[in-house]
Amino acid sequence: MSDVAHPSPKASIAEERASPSFPVRELTYWIDGGRRVTELKERIMLELERDPLWRVNDHPNLTLAETRERAMSKVRRLADLATSRPLEESLMRMSIISVVDPGFWTRFGVHFGLFFGALQGQATAAQMAYWMDRGALSMQGITGCFGMTELGHGSNVAGLETTATLDERTDEFVVHSPTLTATKWWIGGAAHTATHCAVYAQLIVKNKRHGAKTFVVQLRDTKTFALMPGVEIGDLGKKMGRDQIDNGWIRFTHVRIPRSHMLMRHTKVTRSGDVIEPPLAQLAYGALIQGRVSMVSDSANVAKRALTIATRYASVRRQFGGGAPGVAETKLIDYPIHQYRLLPLMAQTFAMIFTAREVTANYEKLMGELSELSDSNDAAAADAIKNLKETHATSAGLKAFCTWMCLNIIDQCRQSLGGHGYSAYTGLSQAYSDFAVHCTWEGDNTILTLQCGRYLVATALEARKGQPLPENLSYLRGAVSSAGALSSRACTGDTPENVSSLDTLKAAWSSVAANAILNAVRDFEAGLAKGLSKDDAYEFSSASRLHAARMHTYTYLLHRFAAQVDQSPATLRPVLTLLAQLFGAHSAVQHSGEFLQSKFYSGAQIEALKAFVTHACSEIRKDAVSLTDAFNYTDYVVNSPLGRFDGDVYEKYFELVTSLNPAKPVPYFDSLIKPLLERTNETELGPDLEIDE
Amino acid sequence: MSDVAHPSPKASIAEERASPSFPVRELTYWIDGGRRVTELKERIMLELERDPLWRVNDHPNLTLAETRERAMSKVRRLADLATSRPLEESLMRMSIISVVDPGFWTRFGVHFGLFFGALQGQATAAQMAYWMDRGALSMQGITGCFGMTELGHGSNVAGLETTATLDERTDEFVVHSPTLTATKWWIGGAAHTATHCAVYAQLIVKNKRHGAKTFVVQLRDTKTFALMPGVEIGDLGKKMGRDQIDNGWIRFTHVRIPRSHMLMRHTKVTRSGDVIEPPLAQLAYGALIQGRVSMVSDSANVAKRALTIATRYASVRRQFGGGAPGVAETKLIDYPIHQYRLLPLMAQTFAMIFTAREVTANYEKLMGELSELSDSNDAAAADAIKNLKETHATSAGLKAFCTWMCLNIIDQCRQSLGGHGYSAYTGLSQAYSDFAVHCTWEGDNTILTLQCGRYLVATALEARKGQPLPENLSYLRGAVSSAGALSSRACTGDTPENVSSLDTLKAAWSSVAANAILNAVRDFEAGLAKGLSKDDAYEFSSASRLHAARMHTYTYLLHRFAAQVDQSPATLRPVLTLLAQLFGAHSAVQHSGEFLQSKFYSGAQIEALKAFVTHACSEIRKDAVSLTDAFNYTDYVVNSPLGRFDGDVYEKYFELVTSLNPAKPVPYFDSLIKPLLERTNETELGPDLEIDE
Repeated sequence: MSDVAHPSPKASIAEERASPSFPVRELTYWIDGGRRVTELKERIMLELERDPLWRVNDHPNLTLAETRERAMSKVRRLADLATSRPLEESLMRMSIISVVDPGFWTRFGVHFGLFFGALQGQATAAQMAYWMDRGALSMQGITGCFGMTELGHGSNVAGLETTATLDERTDEFVVHSPTLTATKWWIGGAAHTATHCAVYAQLIVKNKRHGAKTFVVQLRDTKTFALMPGVEIGDLGKKMGRDQIDNGWIRFTHVRIPRSHMLMRHTKVTRSGDVIEPPLAQLAYGALIQGRVSMVSDSANVAKRALTIATRYASVRRQFGGGAPGVAETKLIDYPIHQYRLLPLMAQTFAMIFTAREVTANYEKLMGELSELSDSNDAAAADAIKNLKETHATSAGLKAFCTWMCLNIIDQCRQSLGGHGYSAYTGLSQAYSDFAVHCTWEGDNTILTLQCGRYLVATALEARKGQPLPENLSYLRGAVSSAGALSSRACTGDTPENVSSLDTLKAAWSSVAANAILNAVRDFEAGLAKGLSKDDAYEFSSASRLHAARMHTYTYLLHRFAAQVDQSPATLRPVLTLLAQLFGAHSAVQHSGEFLQSKFYSGAQIEALKAFVTHACSEIRKDAVSLTDAFNYTDYVVNSPLGRFDGDVYEKYFELVTSLNPAKPVPYFDSLIKPLLERTNETELGPDLEIDE
Repeated sequence: MSDVAHPSPKASIAEERASPSFPVRELTYWIDGGRRVTELKERIMLELERDPLWRVNDHPNLTLAETRERAMSKVRRLADLATSRPLEESLMRMSIISVVDPGFWTRFGVHFGLFFGALQGQATAAQMAYWMDRGALSMQGITGCFGMTELGHGSNVAGLETTATLDERTDEFVVHSPTLTATKWWIGGAAHTATHCAVYAQLIVKNKRHGAKTFVVQLRDTKTFALMPGVEIGDLGKKMGRDQIDNGWIRFTHVRIPRSHMLMRHTKVTRSGDVIEPPLAQLAYGALIQGRVSMVSDSANVAKRALTIATRYASVRRQFGGGAPGVAETKLIDYPIHQYRLLPLMAQTFAMIFTAREVTANYEKLMGELSELSDSNDAAAADAIKNLKETHATSAGLKAFCTWMCLNIIDQCRQSLGGHGYSAYTGLSQAYSDFAVHCTWEGDNTILTLQCGRYLVATALEARKGQPLPENLSYLRGAVSSAGALSSRACTGDTPENVSSLDTLKAAWSSVAANAILNAVRDFEAGLAKGLSKDDAYEFSSASRLHAARMHTYTYLLHRFAAQVDQSPATLRPVLTLLAQLFGAHSAVQHSGEFLQSKFYSGAQIEALKAFVTHACSEIRKDAVSLTDAFNYTDYVVNSPLGRFDGDVYEKYFELVTSLNPAKPVPYFDSLIKPLLERTNETELGPDLEIDE
């Protein structure tokens, strides 16, 4: 090691901000959706930071009991804010909290999102009024949880075992867990918090089953918190992450509730025991979509944090390369391989940001249309339901794709911190543990991806029969025209510019997605030809169906990203264009086999694309820190000494670790260490033992 | 849901064992290396299970303080065993503990592996005798830690800032941390355990720096545990995983140690201040290799556990498909997509098992050869060093590749458990957190992969100049012969049998690896042609170099796997062959672009390969549970109710969760919940506030 005074970390990051290629603040406004939104966000971030309840940098040192108690202490603060402040502000606060404090976000969301959401989606107007009156919105008198999953059933809601049997004599339902596997499991808020539960159970009337419906069941006395008769509750204890939320199990033994506690907006059960099915059962899908759409935003928001930490640290940390006298070691971000590790993830993050914005807007538009519908079966309803189906399938694919992508981004960013990524105080190990559940809840990602794939296959088959293709699948137009042979255009020329323009990349991905969907169709039809049932033919084609959904979702993201680039201010367009190209090109290189097989790109063109990726990384590298600045998370939200705005990573990391772990005598020195050090051999031989013979 | 009595979990798994295609016990012997080894393993697993100290299923419920204290209580037990029992047994015990209790494995390994290992590798015979005499082997009087990494430097050992300056007047070294970033960081055992530390510091003699060397520094008084003068120690607190080990930071302020406490097997410093450099500095590499080789075994061992859990659960868990009356829901493992998720991971695990066996044997052989060498520069030494270089590079690539592969296997297996994978009691979330550090320590995986790539490029260049190729790179023979154009054979025919035979797959991977290495050579030379220095040209080619190392390592694993299949008993050969084919074929499909670009496979052949993968998964599915049985981990080692041998997952999962989390009153009902439920609106309006104007 040579005796070089390294530039200080602060100076190292300051020089990164010297000449961004774009107006940083403008990009923040563009990402957030305008200056007003940015300023509201900044106000909320500051409010949280200044609220002592919302300290987060000591989370790693709390026990499970302390974690849960701290979370509960925040519930009231937020419940009061949620009922007294405008909805837009509350939603934004929750969106920030989902990054800062994801476990608490779940603790709070179980009541407001799941329990209250179930009422909103499934209660009649009169029922809604009744539960509102009892405090279901404001958590005054009622705290709710959501009792869907069981020990033996998760994804397969139709297979739930809990029963709700109408007793016509008393006009009550009897809610019962008939087996061990019927025990409600993973119920957030059950262990410590909830007074009521929205229970999914098999509706049984006159010995006939009518499928899983939702029933409000009181769990605890609201004055004493004693369990109601027939209700047993246990604590699920420690989890991979999100320990702020007290997941529990619930077992019902012949628990009686009034008939009116079944939520009857869709299916109704009359006093005389008639079951009236709804005309538009599919409308219940709407509720599922919201969770999925919001997870696309979550993925983008969490990825922004991870990249802020990894990118800023890479601009400060120096390693190797300082061989020559007087030359400082090289910043991580100056290594091509480090650019290659991080900057494609940056491009993915932007792809998710802009996709989230578009699908959220589309979803809100759709929900508006649906709420206009009367509950009857007219043409408008048919149209809306078609739309709903498409959004349902697309959002399923997007939820799976983006949560997987974000989970990978978190771990890649964590690994890019080297050893310091393994500390609990640098932020990303907990981020991983907290985020991982997104890949499972609200629909297991594999199952959701297959759902999306099934929709793609069905749509391609319908298009063959002459049905119009939805906008997002217009790339299938040529492909389904005749025998299924794809007459795609191929890329001409193999200069980097040529293969990597946004238009070329969009065409490339469309061609690959079309190809993948046709392959899945072919496998599905091969299954049918073997004599399999439709469902079994879908299972038979599941590998290609999964693949088709992934290729479609890449294509979808690239198109959304490109559309947003087109609409962006001229000052931002160059950097956003490059990021969109990097997203499309890097993803294509990762799946080069698809492009070679579809003959869109030749081998030489793939090589040119690789060269473009390297070039794009080196260009974006110049703006890397400024891009994280444009994400505009305060140091409080970033919550990692390695991701600080001012780059003062070592001082602040040391301070945090030492303040949270003050020096103390080793607690077990006398009992364990001293005897270890001072012991002598206990296995020394005594006098020879003679054996009588 | 229809009223079907599902087959019990126990019956579901029992039927999986009805007719394995191979003798299960024989495969266990083959994996372990013989019946004697299997029986020794079984004895040790049982001993650990019956030792109350080694209870592990309650780990999730321990606090950090309890976790560390429990770990310390086991140190003595193991230290006594390590010194009184045969080495083979001790090594095997540690290997089992690395799966059962990885955090403790580290706590113990810091002394025996790192501290004592440093003495073994770097102390002179006289120094070794001195430290042994003071109890360095048996932990009687001395507990050691390993002080290499600093806050500001990890991978770049040459850049460490701690100094050890010779004071010729007193014949002492002065060990000092000149800056904050020089603080020793991540030092396992420092916070609570160690009395001595093997400190890496820059040797400074007569104002001249001689690079980083190793010095034994006493940290604490062995009677009182008080810190020695000039030594400051702090606790690094909570980590992502492995909380059993008490990582700490250490700062030295002019700490004086005798000159003889520098380990002088290689570099020597005399009384008069002469520094004598060793003739064969490279021999110090040997110590690095051992850690890397052992991590290949670790990866295989941990992957075996993850697959045991995921596969057994998939044979018991039922989901969907039970539509028809009287038909039970379908086992997860019967879904083609679930087979596709798990069984390629099973094949990867076998690839790692057999690769670990071969590289371990090769490493031991090499170390034997090296120990025969005199410390002089003769021909045998040159040969051995060439061998060492190759093993060094190969093991670097393997360590990175296998630890990444295993980390992915753990998380894929965890996700395949659905929601239950998120519980801390089902085993795989903690396994992930514990294992993740393997991708960083003993060399960051990216840096190690690049090291391997650099060796591959250098070897190809030397081969062009006529140097013989090492055995493992013989596939480069044709490739480097002339201008670098690869005259590879291509696959002929496109039936699944044709494209997927082991010989074809070996040739396919060899061709792709050769291609990737040549690409890296081309990029490296392009860098040189641009006028870059050799080091900068290597940086310039880092993306293709990284890729070349990955392709080479896939090829290496496939060849090792195939070689072991060739030697395996005839009764095992069919199933092992199929697993090896699945490994090669699935990996090829994942990288189909490489095979299309190298023109080994055509597009139609890739499709045939995909069909083969599906077919192989459906075949191996029949033996899936038997393969986990052959891994022969007891339920204690599997340590997950979902991975039980008898399949009784729900009962035992419920029992574990309820016994560890017994019912208790909610601790903060009175303080937090009651006031929340009973509050009234505090924001109600009072009388209108009139403002004087």
